Amino acid sequence: MPAGRPIPEASVARLPVYLRALGSLAQRGVATASSEELAQLAGVTAAKLRKDLSYLGSHGTRGVGYDVALLQDRIAGSLGLNREWRVAIVGVGNLGSALAGYAGFSERGFQVVALLDVDSHVVGTRIGELVVDALADLEAVVAEQRVHIGVLAVPAEAAQEVCDRLVAANVRSILNFAPVVLQVAPDVTVRKADLSTELQILAFHADKEKP
Amino acid sequence: MPAGRPIPEASVARLPVYLRALGSLAQRGVATASSEELAQLAGVTAAKLRKDLSYLGSHGTRGVGYDVALLQDRIAGSLGLNREWRVAIVGVGNLGSALAGYAGFSERGFQVVALLDVDSHVVGTRIGELVVDALADLEAVVAEQRVHIGVLAVPAEAAQEVCDRLVAANVRSILNFAPVVLQVAPDVTVRKADLSTELQILAFHADKEKP
Repeated sequence: MPAGRPIPEASVARLPVYLRALGSLAQRGVATASSEELAQLAGVTAAKLRKDLSYLGSHGTRGVGYDVALLQDRIAGSLGLNREWRVAIVGVGNLGSALAGYAGFSERGFQVVALLDVDSHVVGTRIGELVVDALADLEAVVAEQRVHIGVLAVPAEAAQEVCDRLVAANVRSILNFAPVVLQVAPDVTVRKADLSTELQILAFHADKEKP
Repeated sequence: MPAGRPIPEASVARLPVYLRALGSLAQRGVATASSEELAQLAGVTAAKLRKDLSYLGSHGTRGVGYDVALLQDRIAGSLGLNREWRVAIVGVGNLGSALAGYAGFSERGFQVVALLDVDSHVVGTRIGELVVDALADLEAVVAEQRVHIGVLAVPAEAAQEVCDRLVAANVRSILNFAPVVLQVAPDVTVRKADLSTELQILAFHADKEKP
């Protein structure tokens, strides 16, 4: 990360969107892009995009635009994607299985290194290249596999306890798919990924259009 | 929706989080909550929470706080959750199957009324109470089932075409799980739900802490 102003949370949240837009340009062989082009692909205004990228020290070249490959590197660096992130998924039901097989993770530098479940019928089964471990062994698995990020795909009533165990095992980043707000110490980052949140935002907009 | 100022997009995005926090208070039998309590549960500052809720005309009572049940109703109403939203899921692989079985949808007023897939081995199979329809029949299924919201759980290379067909069939709200930015007309709302986005934001924060 370049030293400088801290990046606002809302700008951080848009960096993965820019990275995805740049990826689709690169796939099409596009070498440079104007802020307008990139902003349209990302679904933001050009002014917002330029402001966001200015936090990374990326200003583009007047009359030419942004170098696609250079900007990809810059954003990936800011997001810490040039190192390997080791992810454990806790809960191997439908959702956990889907997450375990989600190609988008490894493409972006996230390696799923452990799957854990409480169900003895699921423990020991193979999903892709991994064998499901017992939830009882969470602490040992986290230490052995050097897990950085814990993904919770467990029922709501189990989420806080599993979260506490992950944190006690020194995991500082939690992605929570359970529909519950987790309480954690200030040095732990939790992102909520309730799948219905996006639907609720869609419903908000759709409702405005149908009086 | 009460008439008044338009609600900023960032505030809309936090309403589902407040609703979830209120739900957990209601489950514990809590009848009123201060803005500080609610803000802590939702992971925002009390000032931001009060500002967000003021857009809904909810200001709480000095010294008492917010009435939990009343505020739940108000937010649910703003999000259009007191009507039924009919959802079609396109793509019934691991992810689509997980989404089809996700209890959080129906709990929040979203009813999955159709599942569609292109694979002839999957078409005709039963998932829960639904039988998977052929993607070729998308237009007929959308009309028959009165679909409001389309969920894309298809591969990236198929997403734009399926999106175009949903829009042509008069679906105006799309939740896109495919890792690609969709191009749509201005009257269509698309939410991107790339599952790796949240991991990238986590990695950004974790990277800051490990110099």
